[in-house]
Amino acid sequence: MILPKIGISLGDPGGIGPEVVLKALASKNSLPKAHYILFGSSFLIEEEKKILALTLDIPPLEKLGSNDSSCIFLAEVKNPLSSLKRGFPSKENGKSSFLFFQQAVEAARIQKIQALVTAPISKKSWELAGLKWRGHTEYLSHLYPRAIMSFWSKKIRVALFSSHLPLREAIENIKEGNLLDFFLALHQSLEKIQPGKYHFLVAGLNPHAGEEGFLGSEEIQEIIPAVKKAHQRGINVSGPYPPDVVFRECLNKPNKIVVALYHDQGLIPFKLAAFEKGVNLTLGLPFVRTSPDHGTAFDIAGRGQANPQSMIEALKLACSLSSANHLSP
Amino acid sequence: MILPKIGISLGDPGGIGPEVVLKALASKNSLPKAHYILFGSSFLIEEEKKILALTLDIPPLEKLGSNDSSCIFLAEVKNPLSSLKRGFPSKENGKSSFLFFQQAVEAARIQKIQALVTAPISKKSWELAGLKWRGHTEYLSHLYPRAIMSFWSKKIRVALFSSHLPLREAIENIKEGNLLDFFLALHQSLEKIQPGKYHFLVAGLNPHAGEEGFLGSEEIQEIIPAVKKAHQRGINVSGPYPPDVVFRECLNKPNKIVVALYHDQGLIPFKLAAFEKGVNLTLGLPFVRTSPDHGTAFDIAGRGQANPQSMIEALKLACSLSSANHLSP
Repeated sequence: MILPKIGISLGDPGGIGPEVVLKALASKNSLPKAHYILFGSSFLIEEEKKILALTLDIPPLEKLGSNDSSCIFLAEVKNPLSSLKRGFPSKENGKSSFLFFQQAVEAARIQKIQALVTAPISKKSWELAGLKWRGHTEYLSHLYPRAIMSFWSKKIRVALFSSHLPLREAIENIKEGNLLDFFLALHQSLEKIQPGKYHFLVAGLNPHAGEEGFLGSEEIQEIIPAVKKAHQRGINVSGPYPPDVVFRECLNKPNKIVVALYHDQGLIPFKLAAFEKGVNLTLGLPFVRTSPDHGTAFDIAGRGQANPQSMIEALKLACSLSSANHLSP
Repeated sequence: MILPKIGISLGDPGGIGPEVVLKALASKNSLPKAHYILFGSSFLIEEEKKILALTLDIPPLEKLGSNDSSCIFLAEVKNPLSSLKRGFPSKENGKSSFLFFQQAVEAARIQKIQALVTAPISKKSWELAGLKWRGHTEYLSHLYPRAIMSFWSKKIRVALFSSHLPLREAIENIKEGNLLDFFLALHQSLEKIQPGKYHFLVAGLNPHAGEEGFLGSEEIQEIIPAVKKAHQRGINVSGPYPPDVVFRECLNKPNKIVVALYHDQGLIPFKLAAFEKGVNLTLGLPFVRTSPDHGTAFDIAGRGQANPQSMIEALKLACSLSSANHLSP
């Protein structure tokens, strides 16, 4: 049996990223069999292991043989980290976390790993390090312009038509052509992973999905025509549905994905329903990429208090989708 | 002990309104002691009682003496109902449900009742009856222009800055002056009921509440100045908060009310969290008005299958707020 190779970037050294990664990997019974490959620094890992009193064995990646059973390896990334500053953003931590991530992405690009799980970085640290990207997703969107942010949990799954845009701009963006492109990209990326499985339900923009034009025109002018055309092309998509109903209706229905038309339309219900078990899944890439649904949590970094649940869910989803990906034609 | 008088309008005769009212009143142990006064038709009530096999005693309102213990009375409303058409909107049902509601409102205006609970009407039936109002709230807003829609459940409470507007118009409406007026009206109406109890948390408009202007300008230009001015006037209000965080943070905190800036920002999380126990509470009126969080449900009308839980919650909230109202100076 060939185990999938799951890359993990350790995130900002000053945040809870390294802690939740090691805690998740230490809870072996929670995780599927896989080769987990950390992109980070042995210095950072040893420091975290001391604090957490973990005796996890993490050999260098070069030791990985083709017949190894489930194990954890370290891909050492050359980086400027010489001392560990926790609890706040810093230039050095920004540089390091970017290098961990960049090398993991490179490994995924050349198929050395099947999936990438990213621990949280600090936008502020990246800014201090002079980096122009605001986060993982922005960097990935630059490499892969059809990248799609989606959010997964057992209770609900949501794909975002647009993410970090002011609400006025997000509304301007709702055009038939853009929507159709989005439905096609979403469909194609999931067909590669789990063909024929998903039904996309599109939320309306206006209250009650516009109530036949009475409460807004975008449904009639843009959304309905795009849904119709996508449906004609064989995509299992329907809507628009009243936004205050569709999320509730899709609870606990694992083959349904709600398409949210703007950031908060999707993230308000997702964060309410998924709580600490949410996973961020980037679609539209040639590999699977997941991340936990929380940030660096500088206020509790280095105290051993961080909850690894969302990281465990991110690792599980990465494994299950990359295995499926492996099997599909 | 003087019991509060709670008026109940029966709603559209063709929907589940009369059924949930009678079921709720029959579940006596669930309800606080009060005089419940139905505004409706004895013909309609007898028909419903037959279907539900209920033996509820409902004397005419004239029999209500000042020393009666908890009991149900009927305020007979003259209306055109001669036969009962269930399961679809109709002109006759529209006229009847409007008359039930109008007479109950009139009783509340002259303080014959302390609170009004409305069973669902059909907007379509009202339209067929030639009425110009789209629903209860529109009629009440016409009489009381400072009426505010809010939604209450044990888990979460939400007040809507705007309700049935296209999203673009709702955004245009977000101006410092309008917001300040809203905070004042919300504060004043709740001070009358439960002084000093509530803290209002305002959701932002843009992702991450605009991220210091990076993701939209409304927070800096309109919302923050309005919150500051309201705070200076002694109102316990704060924000704006990231919309995808504030609802989760306010779960199960009974003295916190989230101010949502548009219909779906409030109703998506409310319907997800409150499920079948949500109550619509109209504030800014000289009396308490509540209603269940569902519609006429024509598809199951007359079958005895309707769940009275939301109506029970609406009656409970009306009782508790009108008692508090009674006690306050």
